[in-house]
Amino acid sequence: MLVVMKKGASPEQIAHVVERVQELGLTAIPLPGEERTAIGTFGVAAQDHADAVEALPGVERVVLVSRPFKLSSREVQPQDTLVRVGDVPIGGPDVAVMAGPCSVESREQTLGTARAVRDAGAVVLRGGAYKPSTSPYHFRGLGEPGLEILAEAKRATGLPVVTEVLAPADVERVALVADCLQIGARNMQNFALLDAVGETQSPVLLKRGLSATIEELLLAADYILARGNRNVMLCERGIRTFERYTRNTFDVNAIPLLKRLTHLPVVADPSHGTGKWYLVAPVALAAVAAGADALLIEVHPSPDHALKDGFQSLTFENFAALMRAAPAVAGAVNRRVASPAPVA
Amino acid sequence: MLVVMKKGASPEQIAHVVERVQELGLTAIPLPGEERTAIGTFGVAAQDHADAVEALPGVERVVLVSRPFKLSSREVQPQDTLVRVGDVPIGGPDVAVMAGPCSVESREQTLGTARAVRDAGAVVLRGGAYKPSTSPYHFRGLGEPGLEILAEAKRATGLPVVTEVLAPADVERVALVADCLQIGARNMQNFALLDAVGETQSPVLLKRGLSATIEELLLAADYILARGNRNVMLCERGIRTFERYTRNTFDVNAIPLLKRLTHLPVVADPSHGTGKWYLVAPVALAAVAAGADALLIEVHPSPDHALKDGFQSLTFENFAALMRAAPAVAGAVNRRVASPAPVA
Amino acid sequence: MLVVMKKGASPEQIAHVVERVQELGLTAIPLPGEERTAIGTFGVAAQDHADAVEALPGVERVVLVSRPFKLSSREVQPQDTLVRVGDVPIGGPDVAVMAGPCSVESREQTLGTARAVRDAGAVVLRGGAYKPSTSPYHFRGLGEPGLEILAEAKRATGLPVVTEVLAPADVERVALVADCLQIGARNMQNFALLDAVGETQSPVLLKRGLSATIEELLLAADYILARGNRNVMLCERGIRTFERYTRNTFDVNAIPLLKRLTHLPVVADPSHGTGKWYLVAPVALAAVAAGADALLIEVHPSPDHALKDGFQSLTFENFAALMRAAPAVAGAVNRRVASPAPVA
Amino acid sequence: MLVVMKKGASPEQIAHVVERVQELGLTAIPLPGEERTAIGTFGVAAQDHADAVEALPGVERVVLVSRPFKLSSREVQPQDTLVRVGDVPIGGPDVAVMAGPCSVESREQTLGTARAVRDAGAVVLRGGAYKPSTSPYHFRGLGEPGLEILAEAKRATGLPVVTEVLAPADVERVALVADCLQIGARNMQNFALLDAVGETQSPVLLKRGLSATIEELLLAADYILARGNRNVMLCERGIRTFERYTRNTFDVNAIPLLKRLTHLPVVADPSHGTGKWYLVAPVALAAVAAGADALLIEVHPSPDHALKDGFQSLTFENFAALMRAAPAVAGAVNRRVASPAPVA
Repeated sequence: MLVVMKKGASPEQIAHVVERVQELGLTAIPLPGEERTAIGTFGVAAQDHADAVEALPGVERVVLVSRPFKLSSREVQPQDTLVRVGDVPIGGPDVAVMAGPCSVESREQTLGTARAVRDAGAVVLRGGAYKPSTSPYHFRGLGEPGLEILAEAKRATGLPVVTEVLAPADVERVALVADCLQIGARNMQNFALLDAVGETQSPVLLKRGLSATIEELLLAADYILARGNRNVMLCERGIRTFERYTRNTFDVNAIPLLKRLTHLPVVADPSHGTGKWYLVAPVALAAVAAGADALLIEVHPSPDHALKDGFQSLTFENFAALMRAAPAVAGAVNRRVASPAPVA
Repeated sequence: MLVVMKKGASPEQIAHVVERVQELGLTAIPLPGEERTAIGTFGVAAQDHADAVEALPGVERVVLVSRPFKLSSREVQPQDTLVRVGDVPIGGPDVAVMAGPCSVESREQTLGTARAVRDAGAVVLRGGAYKPSTSPYHFRGLGEPGLEILAEAKRATGLPVVTEVLAPADVERVALVADCLQIGARNMQNFALLDAVGETQSPVLLKRGLSATIEELLLAADYILARGNRNVMLCERGIRTFERYTRNTFDVNAIPLLKRLTHLPVVADPSHGTGKWYLVAPVALAAVAAGADALLIEVHPSPDHALKDGFQSLTFENFAALMRAAPAVAGAVNRRVASPAPVA
Repeated sequence: MLVVMKKGASPEQIAHVVERVQELGLTAIPLPGEERTAIGTFGVAAQDHADAVEALPGVERVVLVSRPFKLSSREVQPQDTLVRVGDVPIGGPDVAVMAGPCSVESREQTLGTARAVRDAGAVVLRGGAYKPSTSPYHFRGLGEPGLEILAEAKRATGLPVVTEVLAPADVERVALVADCLQIGARNMQNFALLDAVGETQSPVLLKRGLSATIEELLLAADYILARGNRNVMLCERGIRTFERYTRNTFDVNAIPLLKRLTHLPVVADPSHGTGKWYLVAPVALAAVAAGADALLIEVHPSPDHALKDGFQSLTFENFAALMRAAPAVAGAVNRRVASPAPVA
Repeated sequence: MLVVMKKGASPEQIAHVVERVQELGLTAIPLPGEERTAIGTFGVAAQDHADAVEALPGVERVVLVSRPFKLSSREVQPQDTLVRVGDVPIGGPDVAVMAGPCSVESREQTLGTARAVRDAGAVVLRGGAYKPSTSPYHFRGLGEPGLEILAEAKRATGLPVVTEVLAPADVERVALVADCLQIGARNMQNFALLDAVGETQSPVLLKRGLSATIEELLLAADYILARGNRNVMLCERGIRTFERYTRNTFDVNAIPLLKRLTHLPVVADPSHGTGKWYLVAPVALAAVAAGADALLIEVHPSPDHALKDGFQSLTFENFAALMRAAPAVAGAVNRRVASPAPVA
């Protein structure tokens, strides 16, 4: 933290800032300049500290110099974290594809989709039993019966399952079935929920909030890591922008940026990241080219009959076409698309 | 919902859309035009429906024509809702001022502030015992001991209390002390929490999310209303924009717009809405001029020692100055600033 | 500018940064710390300098500590600038109201509106002869004949005129008629145009860009000031946000913030700032309460027949109602609404 | 355009809307419903029309159903437009790489860079003689001497040149040297400039504005096309978002979306689109995977000595590495990287 004093700030004001900084547990060193004095501080300062000091008399501006996230930082852990979803490693050399319906709607739809995505090469099944919905008048998921259908799909296909959890009280129940707990974008800063999944050892797929910065995403990851759960994956799923032809804007920059800032695996969700089925495949390939460790893709047997988000789901056929195209792009950046385990 | 078909869409495609719309429970009427066919639909369509239909073959575009929120709409209830926080009516002719510290830090700080804001004319005490924090390494509130301090401040001053609740499991406990439950901006779409406060009859102060639209705010209110709790107030507290000199951008347009769209009371929070103490008073007065039903103001005995958000808190003196200025502005728009109940 | 080196940056890397900073014309002082070295610099650094240094080997992050705008800053000129549009002073104790049609459409419409706004208390006439339009297929203004109509309206009413200029080549011609040149939001960073109006001594009304920060607005003002034209007024006219029920979001924070950062007068445009006629009056009053020096209001004899932006124009009657309400709000914040000069 | 009337709108109000719609040159057909009446219109309606009608008494909401851009639309021209920059075709099967310095700083820097990028495989030289700058105190380009240096670099390497034009008065002069005129992001809605380049037959590289939507970009292209210049290329160069670790957010969705909506070639600029040199290569590869027709890359012999934007420029070595990686990604999506013409 660097505190820049106003021109003509009095010695008393400078002394007051030094004192206040020390109360915050930091060391303060005044740096007199020709026009004005600056005060350097040492120790880990936070945005709240900076804001507090900026309110002091005589202060012109405060600038933070260190990054606030810690446990997720590559400075803390240089080597990549490998998260295992079932027996599928994510964050290593292979690019894993997770696919399935947005929502679990029925036994038939879920099992059919699970088999189709597995046959096409997916190694993890995704599907929502508890679904967030902007409107209280819409479908909010099947709940527990949905979890049972997912469990059956897992037994039938051998694919590990990722599914969303919406409330701290549901974590235990969902974790009985799920191989990976998903925290949705709207819950990225639901701190009670982050604490709750942090108390488990289940892998967590943490989605970036609709207008969250990368720094806020990493701080949310730190919540989970700080509770002792190190199995965290970060998911870029598009951010809100002014563009109206797409539902969200997939932030492809976030992929190489996150790989640089953090040791956690980075997952790309081009289904939510575009909101249009016809943009999913090109953006999925772009994500692989940019260095994503995994893809999360919505697939539905009959997208125009989906209860939720059908407009961004691929048909079985379109998903299979994407799976045929992905290996060449992965190969072009020296990765492989992860192969399904051989069927016993 | 109006479905616009592509030029040259086939009769089969049109028939398929009509059929699909009917499956969604809506009536569909094709409207052939010179260049292309449109299909009008009747019944309440949702964004999800529109998106689903847009994915059908031959469809160019779908436009929603009705607003998705209902219980909060003035079309459903034309007359204003009056919410009572303790015995303070909000949403009527008087403008109520709610004030107090961002966080409950100590008994002394809270009681001192409560007395000061009451003496200056506030009619509700605000203060947080459970605090959301972007970083896991920062102060997250005193928790239960904080609630006890709030209860004592309430007894000491007679002011009803508004305080935040962060998790469904805490609702019952917080409601024992609080006269009004606050849902913070980051939880505006925490649907499990909205459901939980909807099951109570406590007044709820629902804050607009950091990048939420007005429509999303009203849908979040509908979650609470739909569970049977009609005591909902909406709070404009600033939205995230590109501006960096302020913490948030207070959306003053939202005040008259909400008064037009909904019957629920509208509260303005210029403390979070600006993030700079020196902008709080002018923006508070602007909110009153624009028609706000209440103000929510952070006050701290020593803002530069606040554990959280001190940079946006008013001193006792600055708050008293604002309270001296507010009545003239309220009078200019034919309102009055609510008076405290006489001390027994 | 403060340069934060990476943990373990080598002495050579530090020396290289010091050398590079000095090449930029700044003084560099290394500040060794326990964990890492920082390098303080003195002299006026710019964002470009910061970005350049951030690319050097061993550098973790660079933070700018001084504000980049100068001539518009209150640090350079503490006392308020008073700009005279015709004989109307703007930036002094009185709040001036500028009103008129969005576009000059006809002699009759313009003269009728000019008389109506003058009778209701406006002291400056606004109206566009050259109009920017997002689409090439829409009305782009009458051009020169529009200027002649404005000249006639000025003679008929005695009101000075503010009108937009779109291209450097038009500046001279427009300045013959206009008492104040308007730079529209889409041209805020049209640097050739800023240079051109900076070469004149005409008052300039500089509108904030659709997604411009306050800092960028002040830098744009510096372009004009740096050419020698000190008669610059800044206009908040709403910024682009995610909200769809309003055309723009009027940034009321900007008013007291600009009054603090700069000595230039601040004008509020609630017509563009809301985009809905029914929000114009409450937001205009809010702007006055927040400290605006002037209002810019669109008025049309028959808004639903306007060729452009009728949906945000007030009728004569609604404008007169606003003018009746404004003095009380101005009075509540110790201002007056400027009175028209007595008719000779 | 569909006009939705309020519940209980009177027959007179409906008749007034019909009449007003007809005055706008459109056909209006009332569609009475159970709850309320809607009015369908036929003919090409614009946002301005919709806004105007929305202001009429009794109207609840107006929705536009057709897209406002025309000449750039695939509905108007289904087959791809091929633009030739010098003798390099853009928009065909090959992916063209345009590279060079952000700004022309000196003869030596420009010629050296031109040779280096040509040797590495670039087929077009980029470089700015006239540079926009947010601050009036920064480098704004060499101007005419810069153009002469570009002309020399073109003769020396045989590479055609793309360079920016900032003002209508400069178009003719710049077009004497440039094989392609660049319109920068800040000028995307500088309509006088769009008109001016539309009067030439020079290829135009039109950059998307900082917070422009795709629709606004296509309308800006329509300005140029409508003047008779059909040689327009669209450039995605990142949009402004809340993210602070990157300068802009490269909108990778825009690439396949534009390829679907328009026949014009789509160019990706990952240098501005990320603002960090270490993100340029992965995002460039992502753009190719998503379907870009060309890349625009900043290269500098010594990025940490660049006068402008060095932090986002690649060194010769890093550029060569990108050029070695690109062909495999292009091949993976059935494209080729365009080869330089053989040196005579």
